Amino acid sequence: MSARNILLLSSSRLHGYGYLEHARAQLEDLFKSKNVKTVLFVPYAGRNHDKYTETVRSALQPWGYAVEGLHNKVDKAQALRDAQAIFVGGGNTFVLLRTLYELNLVEPIRELVLERGLPYVGSSAGTNVATRSIHTTNDMPVAYPPSFEALALVPFNINPHYLETDANTNHKGETRDERIEEFVAYHKRPVLGLRESNFLRIQGDRATLLGTRAAKLFKADGAAEEYAPQADLSFLLQQ
Amino acid sequence: MSARNILLLSSSRLHGYGYLEHARAQLEDLFKSKNVKTVLFVPYAGRNHDKYTETVRSALQPWGYAVEGLHNKVDKAQALRDAQAIFVGGGNTFVLLRTLYELNLVEPIRELVLERGLPYVGSSAGTNVATRSIHTTNDMPVAYPPSFEALALVPFNINPHYLETDANTNHKGETRDERIEEFVAYHKRPVLGLRESNFLRIQGDRATLLGTRAAKLFKADGAAEEYAPQADLSFLLQQ
Ligand SMILES: [Ca+2]
Ligand SMILES: [Ca+2]
Repeated sequence: MSARNILLLSSSRLHGYGYLEHARAQLEDLFKSKNVKTVLFVPYAGRNHDKYTETVRSALQPWGYAVEGLHNKVDKAQALRDAQAIFVGGGNTFVLLRTLYELNLVEPIRELVLERGLPYVGSSAGTNVATRSIHTTNDMPVAYPPSFEALALVPFNINPHYLETDANTNHKGETRDERIEEFVAYHKRPVLGLRESNFLRIQGDRATLLGTRAAKLFKADGAAEEYAPQADLSFLLQQ
Repeated sequence: MSARNILLLSSSRLHGYGYLEHARAQLEDLFKSKNVKTVLFVPYAGRNHDKYTETVRSALQPWGYAVEGLHNKVDKAQALRDAQAIFVGGGNTFVLLRTLYELNLVEPIRELVLERGLPYVGSSAGTNVATRSIHTTNDMPVAYPPSFEALALVPFNINPHYLETDANTNHKGETRDERIEEFVAYHKRPVLGLRESNFLRIQGDRATLLGTRAAKLFKADGAAEEYAPQADLSFLLQQ
């Protein structure tokens, strides 16, 4: 059994809430279960690492958690080994993954999370890189990473910020569903469309959908199915 | 002076028109100027190459142009050298560019268009690969190409299917403008946002905006400017 202790957010922001505020209960559940006092933040999906770390600190500090930035650590592998929990923030998925490869952090993070149970929280791009590949990011490919293969903390793909595109538009660019179906057609692999109000909680070999709305699973065979909050999605881990 | 003779479409479909119908005048202008009777179609952005070629044939044949598919040619480099004009269709930009690299067609196409004046028509993904890189595609990265560097028939980037995202949405994913601005912030290079009704015509060192709406230029310094139809955009070629 895997030591996984993971919380994947679709988005760090939800309409009507402050930064991370909609995720507070889920974050605190995870942090308290492991007696986490300090969170190591991974800011590489963003442009200004100091400012981004400050944003996260402003959200978590009032709840009682200290926040440090991985970019400020000289020995990053050691900092990860010492960490009580890591939070990988959103921004640009391509920039994030390229930086993780450049800093040789892909394997260390993967090992710490899968084998030593390091608590991992990801949001948006931080959720994309937690999956098997970044093939299903919504981001513009502004940077070229050495691979689209990612941390593979889970063996399927997620599309964060998932939403159905307005079918009444006159616009001819692909809808979100068409984009995801294009991935499924090429790869024959499932994609979980995670709406902005939703989370995926993974504990060992158990995966549970959390949040207030349904999630849409695009299945490997081309069909799709909606799952309600609290649904057991553990079958997605068995691949 | 470059031998370029290029027509770049934002989209092969425009609301209210049949496939390629909105572009008929521009296509015929280009084809007639070179006495083109047969168009060599490059279907690699699509999934079913035969069916896709048939779609293009159904559109161009009634106007008097024969259509052949590059995928049916055994010696593709020779077919390109023999071609009167090529049309690179839309679909998935990552799949298209990866296939062009796999088939070793990037350099041959580039040389034929820039030095021998082979007429090039691109739409959507076919427009993305005509530019210096595919960093500004809207497509989902379903395939991993060996590089994001593209044909570089023009030295700037284009965002096809450009549109302003509804500012009143509650959705927190990036807007199109934010995505393009993210590219500009990292690369300090201009991006032409080409709305679906628009075309860019390039003859030698002259570039002209065609179509019925304005195009939005995201400049290297972070500013943006709208250009009306018929605007001379030749300055974008001087980089
Ligand atoms: Ca993003
Ligand atoms: Ca496309």
